[in-house]
Amino acid sequence: MASGLFITLEGGEGVGKSTQARLLVDALRSHGYDVHATREPGGSPAAEALRNLMLFGEAPLSTRAEILAHFAARFDHVDQVIKPALAAGQIVLCDRFTDSTLAYQGYGRSMGDESILSLIRMLDGNLGLQPDRTFLLETPREIARQRLVARKAPTDRYEQADEAFHARVIAGFQTIAGQNAGRIRRVDTSSLSVEDVNSLIVRDILAIRAHV
Amino acid sequence: MASGLFITLEGGEGVGKSTQARLLVDALRSHGYDVHATREPGGSPAAEALRNLMLFGEAPLSTRAEILAHFAARFDHVDQVIKPALAAGQIVLCDRFTDSTLAYQGYGRSMGDESILSLIRMLDGNLGLQPDRTFLLETPREIARQRLVARKAPTDRYEQADEAFHARVIAGFQTIAGQNAGRIRRVDTSSLSVEDVNSLIVRDILAIRAHV
Repeated sequence: MASGLFITLEGGEGVGKSTQARLLVDALRSHGYDVHATREPGGSPAAEALRNLMLFGEAPLSTRAEILAHFAARFDHVDQVIKPALAAGQIVLCDRFTDSTLAYQGYGRSMGDESILSLIRMLDGNLGLQPDRTFLLETPREIARQRLVARKAPTDRYEQADEAFHARVIAGFQTIAGQNAGRIRRVDTSSLSVEDVNSLIVRDILAIRAHV
Repeated sequence: MASGLFITLEGGEGVGKSTQARLLVDALRSHGYDVHATREPGGSPAAEALRNLMLFGEAPLSTRAEILAHFAARFDHVDQVIKPALAAGQIVLCDRFTDSTLAYQGYGRSMGDESILSLIRMLDGNLGLQPDRTFLLETPREIARQRLVARKAPTDRYEQADEAFHARVIAGFQTIAGQNAGRIRRVDTSSLSVEDVNSLIVRDILAIRAHV
């Protein structure tokens, strides 16, 4: 049995992650792969309960506590869902992972505060799992914002944050991509069609799959 | 203004912590001190929401995730309640703190697994706050068990655990007390009256207060 493959999709709000995640699952399944699609925060029953508390709870957590809560959800998700799926040979496709915690809590909320970034990296180092490939979807903020307005879904704590916050998150993702150039592929979703983005991602994964 | 004082009460189930906490608050207030009484997990609005999820949630967290969730609650409690109270000169009296995470998750749940104990100590090291004094209340398990049966309150995840688990927790507390002899005072609540335990604790705190 082939070993599993752990793929994450990252990016700011409204860059087209959910659409690409759906297309990617269909494409990989059409190539005969067994795919488990999941998301963070959440992805396991207890992590989904934590997600609900973090995104929609009445009492906001302190910045450090929010980081710990994200990792509580992530450890549960890894232990109870992702590792067993990888052990069973599945391709696990996860919408957001540690890079989002670095971008949102580390750069967005804490403005790159080194003690906060260290806390996140230390927790990440304890996970015992890194993505085999991460796709960072990028689009100019103004285009992303218009998509969010058109979506009309209830907005969570992050979507309600101000523009300066989102600018820091986007710049944070760029910094993270620069520091992890071997793992992270940047994909500009504003200059390519939805189908072309999907093809590009699928080709990259099939190339990795051929070697793992 | 005097600096604050951070006191924690620790021990297994049914050793008399809640009773002693109540008596202690009254005694310290009668000596003119401004006391903030609190508890873990919980103690701040977001931490109480996490407590509810951890103790009564339908989906149990993985062991590592449970530790992270306890620290998420603890960081929030420290950041939003304990540190501000100490800065305002209050005596903060907390029913359970990191020692309970070591005893319950580290020794009880994980049987002293060194990687789990290290994770807990590492998180504790990031808190930036240690108790000035900890009272470890101890009583033979059979007496404690009878008290719990008589209480008839709804039981949480921990109170429902088996006897071997509680034995590991009690032994864990003893180990922790041995490693932190300067901070932790062990108090045998089965050989002293409730009032004598209270007097002993109050005298110790007043002696510390005279020097801090």
